[in-house]
Amino acid sequence: MSDRFLRACRREPVDRTPVWFMRQAGRYMEEYRALRRRYTLLEMCRTPELALEVTLQPVRRFAVDAAILFSDLLLPLAPMGLRVDFVGGEGPSVESPVRTEEDIDRLHAVEPREDLAPVLEAIRLVRAELGGRVPLVGFAGAPFTLASYAIEGGHSSTFAHTKALMYGNPAAWHRLCDKLATVVGGFLAAQAEAGVQALQLFDSWVGALAPADYREFALPHTRRIFEALSSIDVPTIHFGTGTATLLGDMRAAGGDVIGVDWRIPLDQAWARIGDGCGAQGNLDPALLLAPRQRLLDGAADVLRRAAGRPGHIFNLGHGILPATRVEQVAALVEFVHGYRVTGNG
Amino acid sequence: MSDRFLRACRREPVDRTPVWFMRQAGRYMEEYRALRRRYTLLEMCRTPELALEVTLQPVRRFAVDAAILFSDLLLPLAPMGLRVDFVGGEGPSVESPVRTEEDIDRLHAVEPREDLAPVLEAIRLVRAELGGRVPLVGFAGAPFTLASYAIEGGHSSTFAHTKALMYGNPAAWHRLCDKLATVVGGFLAAQAEAGVQALQLFDSWVGALAPADYREFALPHTRRIFEALSSIDVPTIHFGTGTATLLGDMRAAGGDVIGVDWRIPLDQAWARIGDGCGAQGNLDPALLLAPRQRLLDGAADVLRRAAGRPGHIFNLGHGILPATRVEQVAALVEFVHGYRVTGNG
Repeated sequence: MSDRFLRACRREPVDRTPVWFMRQAGRYMEEYRALRRRYTLLEMCRTPELALEVTLQPVRRFAVDAAILFSDLLLPLAPMGLRVDFVGGEGPSVESPVRTEEDIDRLHAVEPREDLAPVLEAIRLVRAELGGRVPLVGFAGAPFTLASYAIEGGHSSTFAHTKALMYGNPAAWHRLCDKLATVVGGFLAAQAEAGVQALQLFDSWVGALAPADYREFALPHTRRIFEALSSIDVPTIHFGTGTATLLGDMRAAGGDVIGVDWRIPLDQAWARIGDGCGAQGNLDPALLLAPRQRLLDGAADVLRRAAGRPGHIFNLGHGILPATRVEQVAALVEFVHGYRVTGNG
Repeated sequence: MSDRFLRACRREPVDRTPVWFMRQAGRYMEEYRALRRRYTLLEMCRTPELALEVTLQPVRRFAVDAAILFSDLLLPLAPMGLRVDFVGGEGPSVESPVRTEEDIDRLHAVEPREDLAPVLEAIRLVRAELGGRVPLVGFAGAPFTLASYAIEGGHSSTFAHTKALMYGNPAAWHRLCDKLATVVGGFLAAQAEAGVQALQLFDSWVGALAPADYREFALPHTRRIFEALSSIDVPTIHFGTGTATLLGDMRAAGGDVIGVDWRIPLDQAWARIGDGCGAQGNLDPALLLAPRQRLLDGAADVLRRAAGRPGHIFNLGHGILPATRVEQVAALVEFVHGYRVTGNG
């Protein structure tokens, strides 16, 4: 079994830098596309045998040091009472988005063991099938990012509705995020109970916030989730994009490891995160579309900037792009594993 | 005549902090929507009398310290040989986007005085009509941002095609950006000749780049534009979003004033920009959707962080959002003008 990933989460010495990828199961793999032709994204997430199969696809192909459960950030919104769908390609959409206090008050509490049972069953299947080969990462969305999907009804470039509610009715905003934090905290705990060995909280769009707004509107709810998880013996990763000016606050909110995107060099990011905390990242996913040598030069730069500090997990700054060729992913994993870790053990 | 804006561009003492807004003419104004019901966006940009009318709409409504020519970043792409259109709302689209070396080699040189004559005529009309009341700002897109529209065919969230070309064929990328820099430099010089009193270069999407990639792929072309403009006695503003880690490099590329978005507090941004340079920004446009007091508190915070340094121009961190109420814009202008500038003159 490769325990590099879990050791790095705990900032223990590792023989090689561990590597895995966000969206390592996805449209760039032909075996994934073959399944997607037969099932919708939601069917794949909600059918444990399909989620198992897709979760394992990248583990079969690549020597990655972790599996990540195939699932979607928006799943917990459905049992809260929202109608979630994926229209067109894979873009999420929420019918009748949350806009008013009444919409917020109407959202249900969630009992993950019942309402999200297929996800938990998929976790049990994956753990059994992996047989300890690599650890399994579970995940959920952070309150700000989930709230933005619930309020905008999908992805947004301006977050106008989200911020209008946040600024216009802070009490309602906090009530919504409180509900989301409760659901997400419970869901992550249930995932750990079902067998995931690490948990990643995705605050993917939080980089849309000014730092002061992050502290006022997002941090308290994210912190509550990490506090709730602190009694569970599973390492946690706290991820966002566009967070160059938020990293210190994200660390304060919680997480054993902070996920970093490519917009800030990893050494500078880690300096802002501070000591006593791991860092995950931070190659631009678009470099997987580049010629081999440029890809590996980029990876070497990331590894160099992490050298001398325990707790680095190699990853991209965001998910693998659909246009990526699998040979590039394989070459990147091999390169990271061939890189001599110095001062890291 | 209000000369606050031009004085601030030169970092000279001002009685009040000057204020104007990106997209101060736009869908949030009923008089704009009335015209848009009768004309397409391109018709409005390419008919000097319509561009004049729309440019003046916010100057009539608000006590802004500058007018900005109503135009669009993508206009120069059309005479280069690309088919530009605005489908649906106002989202730009380029038919047959640039993807190959052949596509790049096929792009024409542009003679702004002929190919963009309606824009220059609009400038002359606006100057005559303004009668010196407030200065007129001209603008164009920076090579990276224009290239991304030309390559993606519209707005993108991943810039996958753009970066694939940039990494995959750097020579072709630089040839494309060189062509764009030549066109943009010539266009901006022609705008100055036609009468604009300041020039803003929009590198709106450059925050998608890692800092090292910015230095390799964007900065040289942007610098060439600012160098070409250095012989012209018109102040320049260099704007981008998501640029917290790029501000020092943007300043090195050029511009008398650096535009800053809300993702970094203005004092921290200015420290990264360095001395001897102005700063424009940096209120979150979504704050115009907030209750009055929160809007003004946000504005006061921006003004406080700029206090003691000459060369601050108050603006948003990006364009006014369509859902904005005009009363909010008026109140913000009044508040900025009522704020006592300290240590600034």
